[in-house]
Amino acid sequence: MASRTATPEQLSHLHAIIPAGGVGSRLWPLSRAREPKFLLDLTGAGRSLIRSTWERIVPLTGEDRIIVVTGEAHRAGVMAQLPELPERNLVLESEPRDSTAAICLAAALIVRRDPEAIVASFPADHFIGDEPEFRAVVRDAVAVAATGRLVTIGITPTSPATGFGYIHVGEPLDPAGAAGLPARARAVTAFVEKPKAAVARRYVDSGEYLWNAGMFVARAADLLGWLERQEPELAAGIARIADAWGTDERDAERARVWPTLKKVAIDYAIAEPVAAEGDVAVIPGTFDWDDVGDFAAVARQVRKRNPGNLAILGEASVLSESSTGVLVSETDRLIAIIGVEDLVVVDTDDVLMITTGAHAQRVKEMVNMVRQTGNEDLL
Amino acid sequence: MASRTATPEQLSHLHAIIPAGGVGSRLWPLSRAREPKFLLDLTGAGRSLIRSTWERIVPLTGEDRIIVVTGEAHRAGVMAQLPELPERNLVLESEPRDSTAAICLAAALIVRRDPEAIVASFPADHFIGDEPEFRAVVRDAVAVAATGRLVTIGITPTSPATGFGYIHVGEPLDPAGAAGLPARARAVTAFVEKPKAAVARRYVDSGEYLWNAGMFVARAADLLGWLERQEPELAAGIARIADAWGTDERDAERARVWPTLKKVAIDYAIAEPVAAEGDVAVIPGTFDWDDVGDFAAVARQVRKRNPGNLAILGEASVLSESSTGVLVSETDRLIAIIGVEDLVVVDTDDVLMITTGAHAQRVKEMVNMVRQTGNEDLL
Repeated sequence: MASRTATPEQLSHLHAIIPAGGVGSRLWPLSRAREPKFLLDLTGAGRSLIRSTWERIVPLTGEDRIIVVTGEAHRAGVMAQLPELPERNLVLESEPRDSTAAICLAAALIVRRDPEAIVASFPADHFIGDEPEFRAVVRDAVAVAATGRLVTIGITPTSPATGFGYIHVGEPLDPAGAAGLPARARAVTAFVEKPKAAVARRYVDSGEYLWNAGMFVARAADLLGWLERQEPELAAGIARIADAWGTDERDAERARVWPTLKKVAIDYAIAEPVAAEGDVAVIPGTFDWDDVGDFAAVARQVRKRNPGNLAILGEASVLSESSTGVLVSETDRLIAIIGVEDLVVVDTDDVLMITTGAHAQRVKEMVNMVRQTGNEDLL
Repeated sequence: MASRTATPEQLSHLHAIIPAGGVGSRLWPLSRAREPKFLLDLTGAGRSLIRSTWERIVPLTGEDRIIVVTGEAHRAGVMAQLPELPERNLVLESEPRDSTAAICLAAALIVRRDPEAIVASFPADHFIGDEPEFRAVVRDAVAVAATGRLVTIGITPTSPATGFGYIHVGEPLDPAGAAGLPARARAVTAFVEKPKAAVARRYVDSGEYLWNAGMFVARAADLLGWLERQEPELAAGIARIADAWGTDERDAERARVWPTLKKVAIDYAIAEPVAAEGDVAVIPGTFDWDDVGDFAAVARQVRKRNPGNLAILGEASVLSESSTGVLVSETDRLIAIIGVEDLVVVDTDDVLMITTGAHAQRVKEMVNMVRQTGNEDLL
């Protein structure tokens, strides 16, 4: 067997899916219901996370084979970021029904256009450093997906992070190279939830675990087959919407069926059951990756571009002295900071949020307090 | 000798002087050139520091015997705070010439109205807790001042503060009560500058030192006599302005002479030399006092009125969790703080300043940075 990555023929059937959902509660008050995480520039790249996602995928699929699934409220925001996105590749959700419905509806639309389609789902709001390496990993994943497996992309951990899920890797898929599969492709034994610190340390020390970057590659037909087996009602609902998509019935059918679909994450509905059957593989990626899930992550990313004690995102005039952390500003005030370490400040027109990097995960609690105190309009 | 405090006759000659100068750099960006510390409510009292000062003095002097010395720029601000202040008791400085010129010009105006005047100078921007006790101390000081001494008010230290000057006390003035002086009146051996922590600790442990609250009581004629001896040129300049005060020449004379007056603090020009001659006395006060000189002091004062982990000054909506320190808000934004200790936040329309209580004294450095970076309009 010759090829050890995807063939041009396989790649010609690759379609990307970008589910653009979650608000990013831990990034409040920068992320809001009306301007969620994926529409923001959280790394100082000069473009939003979804724009970066688009730009790193286009070399794999072209502009025509990327479907974005997002809420109706974000139609304008997404189109402003992705003007090249063809209208027919924008799937709008009238309400969030979690990732299985979003990704599988996109897959169902794609398979009706291209029965041999291989779909790859990429979160809209992650950071990836080495894009050529990322694309090489995706091509390897496509080669393995073509053998009928669900392929995930795992990130070689650089620290015992407790904010990510982990993938327990098994044996190499094709140790002797007999099947022509990528040498780095491995079986997946299990997906595990965000661990406690000591467990994370054990995972990383063992060398048997990768960070779960939430990316999946599979043949569209396989994905829908697994869905059919695991969640037959959900599969039937999605099929009804997809069948009506090109017809006058589209809006009515979607309005009728979509709100009834089961809300379940694709990890639970498909990835874990399929892993238990031994049909999930992983391509370990060594590229720099982050889900940019909280302000500690934002600080890390911004500091990569602008080294300094205090990472600054935004156009604020800042005077700082003996201070570390991250400052995000959407106002034009002067900001003066002296003698504060590990600080997180987010200065917006209607909310000022202050915490520390060590408490960055607790911003979610703050969001709950805002809700409970009747300030939903600030979320 | 009967009386051991001031007699009604002595008190009928008591005139207060309120020098309202200093901006309060360590309280930036709350205090500004256009709205200095004394015009602010820094304790949550619901009124400005100068208004509180006025209200605690009026029971001693009435509304007619209080002179306020302030910058021309603060005329409107002071009059808004002290509408009862007679026009003739407002002395405006065209430019700051430090405390000797300010206090002695007021004394020179007073002595021309009342040759037997006893003047008492009180900073416009201090906090005093127990006002009846404060006034009792002042009355004792008046009794001692009537014997020809310069009398200062010292505060019994409650901590080894490094932000205040200290007064080294000597023997009781009238141990046997033979002279009819207040029993608590003591001689002053020396004034000492803000000490280092270890020295402050030694001072407080010795029981021989009091905090210097910057208040002086003396016969106006004595004060001007000491000035004449220590700073004859300054005394002559002040006399020229005072002589012209009730005439058509007032403005011209003041414009000509005031800018030429030596800039020197009254501590150096008068208090220290007179102490060296053995003519300074002190009345130890046990009332709660603070110069409210930085945001750590603001936090202490606000917390007295509103106990809680995070002291809040202003009308902001604040959500806080696991946080301590002080928050001052002049905007109507929601402020959310989580997991930050000893925090100082000042949120104004054009500046956001963040530091810690431990670094509160360093705000002055920040003010220098603001100046150096061409942001003088924010000072």
